[in-house]
Amino acid sequence: MSDPAEVKAFLNRGRMLADGIPWPDLERAESAASDPETDWFDFWMARADRYAALGERTLGESHRTSAGELLWLASLTAHYAQYMWFHDRERREFGQRRKVDLFDRAASHLRPPGERIEIPFEGATIPGYLRLPAGGDGPVPCCVLIGGLEGTKEESHRFEDLCLERGLASFSFDGPGQGEMFFEVKLRPDFERYSSAVLDELESRPEIDSGRIGVLGRSLGGHYAPKSAACDDRFAACCAWGACFDLSDLDSMPARTRAGFLYATGIEDTAAARHPLLDSLDLAPVAERATCPILVVHGRHDVIFSLEQVDKFRRSMVNAELEVQVERDGDHRCHNMGHVVRPRMADWLADRLGGRP
Amino acid sequence: MSDPAEVKAFLNRGRMLADGIPWPDLERAESAASDPETDWFDFWMARADRYAALGERTLGESHRTSAGELLWLASLTAHYAQYMWFHDRERREFGQRRKVDLFDRAASHLRPPGERIEIPFEGATIPGYLRLPAGGDGPVPCCVLIGGLEGTKEESHRFEDLCLERGLASFSFDGPGQGEMFFEVKLRPDFERYSSAVLDELESRPEIDSGRIGVLGRSLGGHYAPKSAACDDRFAACCAWGACFDLSDLDSMPARTRAGFLYATGIEDTAAARHPLLDSLDLAPVAERATCPILVVHGRHDVIFSLEQVDKFRRSMVNAELEVQVERDGDHRCHNMGHVVRPRMADWLADRLGGRP
Repeated sequence: MSDPAEVKAFLNRGRMLADGIPWPDLERAESAASDPETDWFDFWMARADRYAALGERTLGESHRTSAGELLWLASLTAHYAQYMWFHDRERREFGQRRKVDLFDRAASHLRPPGERIEIPFEGATIPGYLRLPAGGDGPVPCCVLIGGLEGTKEESHRFEDLCLERGLASFSFDGPGQGEMFFEVKLRPDFERYSSAVLDELESRPEIDSGRIGVLGRSLGGHYAPKSAACDDRFAACCAWGACFDLSDLDSMPARTRAGFLYATGIEDTAAARHPLLDSLDLAPVAERATCPILVVHGRHDVIFSLEQVDKFRRSMVNAELEVQVERDGDHRCHNMGHVVRPRMADWLADRLGGRP
Repeated sequence: MSDPAEVKAFLNRGRMLADGIPWPDLERAESAASDPETDWFDFWMARADRYAALGERTLGESHRTSAGELLWLASLTAHYAQYMWFHDRERREFGQRRKVDLFDRAASHLRPPGERIEIPFEGATIPGYLRLPAGGDGPVPCCVLIGGLEGTKEESHRFEDLCLERGLASFSFDGPGQGEMFFEVKLRPDFERYSSAVLDELESRPEIDSGRIGVLGRSLGGHYAPKSAACDDRFAACCAWGACFDLSDLDSMPARTRAGFLYATGIEDTAAARHPLLDSLDLAPVAERATCPILVVHGRHDVIFSLEQVDKFRRSMVNAELEVQVERDGDHRCHNMGHVVRPRMADWLADRLGGRP
């Protein structure tokens, strides 16, 4: 890992720490950067192996709470090994699968546990995890969590905890182009149909109050979630964790983000990926259909999605009860102030969906 | 804050992050270090004010979970403003009192809530907070948490959470020379008598199973806790989070730690503070009386307490069921690997005291 610029691009401290990566590992990663023998991927996969071994040993000692946390940490660590490793498909896919396996190993030991649900849809399988708040009586409200370009369901764990503490169930899933679903379905212009399939499944669950299901999307999920809410009025509330109205900012995005878009589409030619696929990621045709309460949270210093994205929400979401919070000091997805912004989004959702006060 | 060495001494990242200080604030503190107009104390007190205001606003919106967290964060931030501010007694005491007030404001909104208990003892008051695990049926086991030289009950919050998740109640208190008790009673050679007074109080509580009360002490608490357990056989288990058998390392400690010892004694003359007071902080006279299970966790790279401290535990605690874990990569109190070591100590305590598996 000899290129400091490379390390700087990968080492997204705010995001990684807020998602649960321990600080000592970030320090070690920075130190390891000066070692040309160790690259980013190897470094984090070795950490994943270490946490996995520790988790298994801890499980063997019947310390389930610690074991669940360690195995989840192993999964998150593998996630960040591969998260922007777009140039090396083989290793990225290995990291992706390892992450999925480790999360599955952790799931039943998490508090509250995660139940893996596989939803068959048009010949593919939508994978997700349902977690129910402790002590819930009768059907509970639920928040569906959608990841971003390289963000996946395993990364949502800490945000799930915020939902659960507030009396909301959580369901995090991978849609087209994301995480393990990428192996079956690449990025498509109709993510919202997969969200609706998730809704169908959740409505069939007696634990969930089907009248109180919301959706939150992070980063590119800040496009998918409002599109899902606009196209399916069963969603009772929606939070865009970062505004992504369309991809008009694509050309000014960091190179690695652009590479990520190509990767997720599975199309190697930029122009071909762009037209018609990426160009069709646009809320304009459906914006007026959105009628539920929508919260948009955006950082003024977001280098991926500009403030113009926020303005487009304001101009176009004319039938929704729209609330916009632009954080003056916030970066992309306000990861640099996650400890303030994340609980606030969870509170907003709990207010709309009727969680615990 | 113009002296980089000063900032480096204060900016204990591992400890502060593991205790709950958000990473973005640490980054800001480091940036602020180049501004000669802003000192460490002012920087963190301003953060405390900000979190307090945000917490009050959040409480006004009936978001109690977030408000409790923010008000506690305000308290923790004020704690770290003053924690090593020994050279400026007036401001340190102001910070100390502000921290106490903010924690008290947070306590009833924490999940689970903290109940303030004031234990009258020999004309003074021992202040502490009791938290009970959710869903406990009948009397529950309890872990008494003791801070260190400049560590206080408010700093124990995250460790309390680890206990509570494992089915243990927690009781964190300030003893002689610590936190708010410092105003009434300075550092004394008989901390263990205050621990026993705490035990008397906990035994009177129907929520607590008096046969299953353990004690953990951190840093200098790694002296107080085993001394408490040695002198009062009602403690059913003991964890020394860092070995401090005696103060034979005093002369080689960092200058600011030595200043902290003087501060806590309230005696300004080094020689007078040392003899007989600090010299009497020695487990040797009571070590053989300890019979309960004792865990000692120590970092090989601890620059305050040497490995000789661990050896003394091994040689002298001959009647206890002693377990020693020396972490090869650990620093002082293994703060640089808190995410692994802290849950493990909580598991050990839960095993001995009969928490939830």
